[in-house]
Amino acid sequence: MRQNDSVEEFVDVAIEAAKKAGEIIRHGFYKSKHVEHKGVVDLVTETDKACEDLIFNHLKQCFPSHKFIGEETTAAASGDFELTDEPTWIVDPLDGTTNFVHGFPFVCVSIGLTIEKKPVVGVVYNPIIDEIFTAIDGRGAFLNGKPIRVSSESQLVKALVATEVGTNRDKAIVDATTGRINRLLFKVRSLRMSGSCALNLCGVACGRLDLFYEIEFGGPWDVAAGALIVTEAGGLVLDPSGSEFDLTARRVAATNAHLKDAFINALNESE
Amino acid sequence: MRQNDSVEEFVDVAIEAAKKAGEIIRHGFYKSKHVEHKGVVDLVTETDKACEDLIFNHLKQCFPSHKFIGEETTAAASGDFELTDEPTWIVDPLDGTTNFVHGFPFVCVSIGLTIEKKPVVGVVYNPIIDEIFTAIDGRGAFLNGKPIRVSSESQLVKALVATEVGTNRDKAIVDATTGRINRLLFKVRSLRMSGSCALNLCGVACGRLDLFYEIEFGGPWDVAAGALIVTEAGGLVLDPSGSEFDLTARRVAATNAHLKDAFINALNESE
Repeated sequence: MRQNDSVEEFVDVAIEAAKKAGEIIRHGFYKSKHVEHKGVVDLVTETDKACEDLIFNHLKQCFPSHKFIGEETTAAASGDFELTDEPTWIVDPLDGTTNFVHGFPFVCVSIGLTIEKKPVVGVVYNPIIDEIFTAIDGRGAFLNGKPIRVSSESQLVKALVATEVGTNRDKAIVDATTGRINRLLFKVRSLRMSGSCALNLCGVACGRLDLFYEIEFGGPWDVAAGALIVTEAGGLVLDPSGSEFDLTARRVAATNAHLKDAFINALNESE
Repeated sequence: MRQNDSVEEFVDVAIEAAKKAGEIIRHGFYKSKHVEHKGVVDLVTETDKACEDLIFNHLKQCFPSHKFIGEETTAAASGDFELTDEPTWIVDPLDGTTNFVHGFPFVCVSIGLTIEKKPVVGVVYNPIIDEIFTAIDGRGAFLNGKPIRVSSESQLVKALVATEVGTNRDKAIVDATTGRINRLLFKVRSLRMSGSCALNLCGVACGRLDLFYEIEFGGPWDVAAGALIVTEAGGLVLDPSGSEFDLTARRVAATNAHLKDAFINALNESE
């Protein structure tokens, strides 16, 4: 246990953990295309698990009284989790597993900390292109140590939008997903799909993307860090309906303040 | 004019031109988010034009008798072009202009050479993440000098597919685009949209993506280099209907041999 449980300490330890896990991911990423299929599945599971163990061990050593929610352990256990007022680390050890398997360079570690259910620290690290996004509540957001801001675009017709098609292939879900894309295409400039929810949020935070929405992603570990990074970069994180963002709802929209109303209207006309 | 008009000479000169143009793109890329909107439009035009001038000048100095088709000059002049049997350089000085404006790191220079209408040299350079894809007819494809191969995936349900939504917003076109995506989603693993046709082809060539298709892109400059890179990496380039690829048709599908029939069937059931 360290002496000072300050927020700087929290973010420093999260960065250390993310970088160490990033080494494991980088190693597996370049190996993934040279193993047979069964091997690939094992490699994902092994990498995911090894990263989560490493991150949790590192965090627990420093902050033994904190709580932990992880994509790997939580999903593997029950799928259920309870977010309490305790300091809670919410971790996706490997966001973008399909990209990882295919060698598509949008993969990351996502580490968020909530206190009294409020995000206070966010760290997202892409070890392949070596970009680390960080944020502390009230102190701004950074990419590799330099301050970042959301875009200043104010016209929806010029906005670059990210979304994802998810993994659910129920007809009603797929039809809703592509129907939303269809109606949105008449109103925005273009669409990107990178395959990583956390990196899409960071893309909005640094202005590479103007807007992002996703409905029915994996869990709070995909957004706990990225949502804080967006808001600390001057952006807004909402429910796609326009109501307040709920970390546990598996629904997210990210925007700058100028585009908010037009974006939310467009998403909901689209329903 | 150089002494030896050999194919090695052609590819070496194309790589030199691509790297020089890449410097201009990299400079503009990091500048693009710090200029006002009117400035951004000018910056794209200026960067596009400066890169095309640089590439054409470099190639013409070395090969004064060759013909040239460029995205910038051809589109700006008439939109028309004639592909003859003469050695012809087909150049997109900046593929991914929307990404360029937004600072999304999928931008590239694409330089292809056809002789008797057949692609013989292809060079695609992404100056932001410093990846150069090269191919010579009959001699394989390379990423930063190392041989690359298409994926060995044989199950459509496990395939990662790239496509794009294009810029045409006519209702019939958009409906066809999203209808195709809808029907495809029930058959493949997931979808990516990077915003660069040439880089999507290179993604298939190096196995990051299993499949790619696009209908109604800009012109032959988007595919002249990338199509050769795919075939030299062991892949197939076709018309999305399954018929022979036509460099001038603005329709492309790229796949490995295992997935070809299933992919073409899926695309056409989708029509």
